[in-house]
Order: sequence, then C-alpha cells, then structure tokens
Amino acid sequence: MKRVYNFGAGPAVLPESVLQEAQNELLDYRGSGMSIMEMSHRSKEYDAVHEEAIANIREIMGLSSDYAVLFLTGGASGQFAMVPMNLVGDGQFADYTNSGSWAAKAIKEAGTIARVNIAADCGKELPARVPDESDLKLTKGAAYLHITTNETISGAQWKIFPSSEAPLVADMSSDILSRPVDADRFGLIYAGAQKNLGPAGVTLVVINKDLAERVSDSVPIMFRYKTHIENNSLYNTPPCFSIYMLMLVTRWIKSNGGLTSMAEINERKARKLYDAIDAGEYFTGTAAREYRSNMNVTFRLPSEELESRFIAEASDRGMKGLKGHRSVGGIRASIYNAFPEEGVDALVAFMKEFERENG
Amino acid sequence: MKRVYNFGAGPAVLPESVLQEAQNELLDYRGSGMSIMEMSHRSKEYDAVHEEAIANIREIMGLSSDYAVLFLTGGASGQFAMVPMNLVGDGQFADYTNSGSWAAKAIKEAGTIARVNIAADCGKELPARVPDESDLKLTKGAAYLHITTNETISGAQWKIFPSSEAPLVADMSSDILSRPVDADRFGLIYAGAQKNLGPAGVTLVVINKDLAERVSDSVPIMFRYKTHIENNSLYNTPPCFSIYMLMLVTRWIKSNGGLTSMAEINERKARKLYDAIDAGEYFTGTAAREYRSNMNVTFRLPSEELESRFIAEASDRGMKGLKGHRSVGGIRASIYNAFPEEGVDALVAFMKEFERENG
Repeated sequence: MKRVYNFGAGPAVLPESVLQEAQNELLDYRGSGMSIMEMSHRSKEYDAVHEEAIANIREIMGLSSDYAVLFLTGGASGQFAMVPMNLVGDGQFADYTNSGSWAAKAIKEAGTIARVNIAADCGKELPARVPDESDLKLTKGAAYLHITTNETISGAQWKIFPSSEAPLVADMSSDILSRPVDADRFGLIYAGAQKNLGPAGVTLVVINKDLAERVSDSVPIMFRYKTHIENNSLYNTPPCFSIYMLMLVTRWIKSNGGLTSMAEINERKARKLYDAIDAGEYFTGTAAREYRSNMNVTFRLPSEELESRFIAEASDRGMKGLKGHRSVGGIRASIYNAFPEEGVDALVAFMKEFERENG
Repeated sequence: MKRVYNFGAGPAVLPESVLQEAQNELLDYRGSGMSIMEMSHRSKEYDAVHEEAIANIREIMGLSSDYAVLFLTGGASGQFAMVPMNLVGDGQFADYTNSGSWAAKAIKEAGTIARVNIAADCGKELPARVPDESDLKLTKGAAYLHITTNETISGAQWKIFPSSEAPLVADMSSDILSRPVDADRFGLIYAGAQKNLGPAGVTLVVINKDLAERVSDSVPIMFRYKTHIENNSLYNTPPCFSIYMLMLVTRWIKSNGGLTSMAEINERKARKLYDAIDAGEYFTGTAAREYRSNMNVTFRLPSEELESRFIAEASDRGMKGLKGHRSVGGIRASIYNAFPEEGVDALVAFMKEFERENG
C-alpha cells in the first residue's frame, strides 16, 4: 500500500496512525465482539468514547465550565440555519462579515430566518482577504456578530479576531484546532469535522450555555442547542463512528503537543509554501499577505494551461487534490493538521522543478 | 477474534462481510492511496459510491422516477421536524397515528411546527399494537398522514398500511428494507440508517418529487427537501463514510436476493422466536399477535429478577443487547436483516434451557 500526499480541501487527510487504529479494531472493538459501529449509543463502550471526545475538546481548547461541547450533524451548513434560529429574537438584527464563499453561504441562510446586517464586505476582493476590525459597521443591539475564521476557497484567514458587544459567533470549519484560540471571546464556535477533526458526518459546536437559553419555543426541539446540551448530544442517536474518529484525532493532537505545537508546525508548513510562492515571479499568491491562511495555500501560475499541467504532473508524483475550487480556479494546497510536512517539502521541490522546466 | 450475537436495537449488527470489506480498504480505497473517509465528496471515487448507493436503493425498493432518494443527517429525529416544516401549509392540519414511543416523539416535534390531529392513539395499549385503518379519524384536507411502521421499543409493526387521501408519510427507521413495500403508496419514507441500512450518521429519505415543491421560502434552505433534490444530496458535504457503508449494505441485500428474500428470512427468524415464546406459559410476548414485529421481538419472563438473570446468562453465552428499552423493561431481541439466523437458533435453545432450569 502506498499512501499519497492528499492536499484536498475536505474531506481531508487523517492521521495515518488514527486510520490504522480504526482499521485494527473495526470488527472487534476492544474485545467486545462487535464493531464500534454496531454498538448502542447507550453502551458503556460507546459512552467512554463519547466522554473522552468531549473531554479532549475541552482540554485542547481550554474551555471553562461556561461552555458546552456538542456533537451535532448537518455540518456548517446546518449551523448556518441553527445559529439564527436559536439566537435571534423577534425583529432583532444579526451582524455578519462577508469574507468569501463560506461567509456568503452563512449570510444567505441567515436571511431566510433573521434580519441580517452585513457589517463588512470584502468577499469578492482580490487579492483575497478578510475584514479588519476597523472595517466593521456593527448594529446596536445585534443578536451576534458572525465571522468565518478561514475561507477554505480563497485562502484568507482571520489572524486577529474582532471585539464586539454582541456575542462573537465563528464558523471555524477549516481551521479549528489548528492554533490556540481564546474561546472565552466567543459565544459560539462551530465546525464541520472533515478538515481538522475527523471524517465528514459530525459537527462540533462549542457554545456558551447562557446563549443557548435564548431560544424560542417555536424552534423545533431537534434544532435547539438547549435540547442537545440537556441530553449531552444523545437526544437522538449521534453519528457514533464519526465521533469515535474525532476522539482518536483529538487524542492524536494531545499526544502531539496540543494547539501550541499544532500552530508551530502549521506555521512552518505554510511558510515553506509561501516562501516558495514569493521566491520569484512565476507563482502568485491569491490572498493578501497579512491574511494568508495557514490551512489553504492558494496561488496561480502564469496561465491556466500551466496550472492544468502542474496539477496533472503533481498527481503523477502522488500529490493529489491540488486543483483550486471550481469557482476560483488556480492551485490550492490544503495543509491541515494531519497533512505531513514531508508532503509540503515534496510540493516545494516540485514547484521549483516545474518552474525550471516550464518557466 | 470472536464475534458475538448482537441483539441490540440500534446502532445494530452489520453484515460481517461488509465490515471486512470496509476494514480491508480503510487506508487505501481501491488503490487511490487514501481512505474513502479522506476523499473529496466531489471526487470520482466517492461519486461512484454515492451513485451506487442511490441506484441500489432505487432498485431494491422498486422506485419510479417520481421519487428522489436523499441521504441527509439528523436521523428520524431530524425528519420529525423536516416533514412538517416542508409539507404543512399555513393553518393546515397534519394527521398522525400514535403507535408508541417513536410515533409520540414525531407527534411532539410536529406540534412545535404545525397543527396536529391524532388520527388514532394506541400508544400505551398493552399488549402493544399499532392502529388499524378502521381506527383512523382523518382530517379533511390534512397535509399528510404519518405512521411509524415499526415501533422499536414495543415491538409492534404495521402489517397492512392504511389508505388516505392525504399523502402517506412513514418513519421506517426500524424496518426499512426488511420486506417488500409498495413505495408508490407513500409520499415520503424516511429512516435513520442504524438498524437496517448501515452505521448511524446517515438518514435515508425517499420522497415524491412533487411533494417537495410544497415548501415555503421561509423554511431554511438547508432544511428543504427541494434543496437536497436539486443538489443530489451534495448541497453540503454528506456523511461520506456512512453512505459508503450503506452502499455496501445495499449491495449485500441485492446479492442476497433483495427484499423478497429478506422478508422470507426475517419471517422465519421471527417465527422461531415467537414459537418459542408461545410454546408454554413461561414467556409472554408483549405485542398483540397480529401486530408482532419481525424486527424487534419483545417478551417478558415471570419476574423482573428472572429477566435480569436471563439477560446476564445470555450475555455470558455471547448473546448481547437483550435488555428491553429502559422505558418498558423486559426482553427485546432485535433481529434485523444482518442478524444471523444461527443467533436466533442459539437464543431459542437458551430460552428452553433457561426455562428448564428456572421454570
């Protein structure tokens, strides 16, 4: 078996040791005679997995007891609806920042539920960036301020989070657990799992418990955060296998030094690629320098034809998933926590070689 | 490795051959150098899985082109909300039948969204049963009539589906694909995967496409069936691994003769257990005879103490998950499609032995 370098934006690479552990115990979870997939979500074996996953998230993110950790489904797209359903009162505004494709999707969904104010809009700027705090035009009495901490498609990332009177709500789908974050500054953080947490199918929500009390009785029970807090994410059958994988991934993060270490490695991996991009005129980064993402490194070559050739030749060398999102084109190297540094080195070497041969 | 007999009600036993195939290719999906969990949901490999899963469901259920097959998340509990959100017009009633715990949960959620009429209520009857068509008091102009085809907790099952002018909507979570069903009689069928379809984390929805057009613009985009029909269940990142498992399970059903064969085997397995229950006075079935479920066989022993001993001794013999739901007690043997007939034989033998020694 030869594993490739998987630069895909998500569902994305997982730690190989995690996959191996899952493989080893797939038919017989720790001598139980059944797969973790076949177990009751009320069994003592699954309960231990569930509780460890929660404890790992609490420890890694440094969460106080003011916060609940929830495992839901529906991904960020589900949260685009649940956030305003739960948090916006009658006639109240919610402030949103538009930083790109994902923020725009959150804004569109919020518009079906609440009155939305676009506090800042740089969603279509090129080079790509996210707003600065100084850009924000906030609404007095807004239900919350929503940001998308990393734009997977454009490769722009919030480096300094804004302050606001209203609770800060963040879609961290593509950079969750990639760097230390002061969770106390947020009212609610959510993330689809399929970049840094595990396979697709589980959605992490970290919510200030007081905020969850805002919800009106007219919201369906299943879509209230409160329901899931009261039931410790066991109101309905949770996506047990995805949570099990998330537990293994968070265990891997802990044993690799937690978020300080993750950030250091991610910073180093990203710098290698941005240095290669900035080394000459051949490659052009598509995000503005001070907003460049450490998760999704986006760049262009001199022509679309060269980009196609670059992607094809990289693929032949076992570097997969480098094609930029269909809406923007170019190259995108997604280098999440689990992406090995050797893969970055291989890509840097290939970039130099490709420029020599095609420059 | 010794696999046990897993009588759990769900998440439940999966075909061993399916687990083995998943295990074999967990780190390297068909020579791609990555796990199916690590692949883009837009990749050609995942696309083939997704399309085969849909095609298998269409073929097994004999669906006409009037129906869409959707893979959503949130389980039956999510559908308890989505169904009325999508199908009930302003001021319109929805008819629900109360057949037990799961129907009651559907009714409670519908009440947060729509005006609900309880068309029949035998939810607390003992011996347990589901309503008959003759029990139903339907509302003129109702949005739909909702039934729960199998009550996992009480062990009562609809054998003959009711007719109604309003579209018939069915929660088939615990007996989907266990017997041939004339899908044309239903407007919408939904099922959490974790009994007969695969691991928890994916929800199957089969919907008449015309019905999906009813939805109002005030429903969040993510919670409209229409959105998922238009995007072939790829509006957001789907739970890829759960869908992959469902694909393997449906492939297994096809290669084992489809629903006619499943029904025959399920009928035989259930009859063996009900015959053992009816053989004397020692065991008492808890569902009324003509409503007895072929999926969840529920019965009592002469005392709770004997029930505890029965469960403990069965467990020592590798027969797991026989404890009845905490809300009703007693014994429950869940014998879904993937539960092997040898396990039923082993339980029947143990029942005889237990009665001899404790009777």
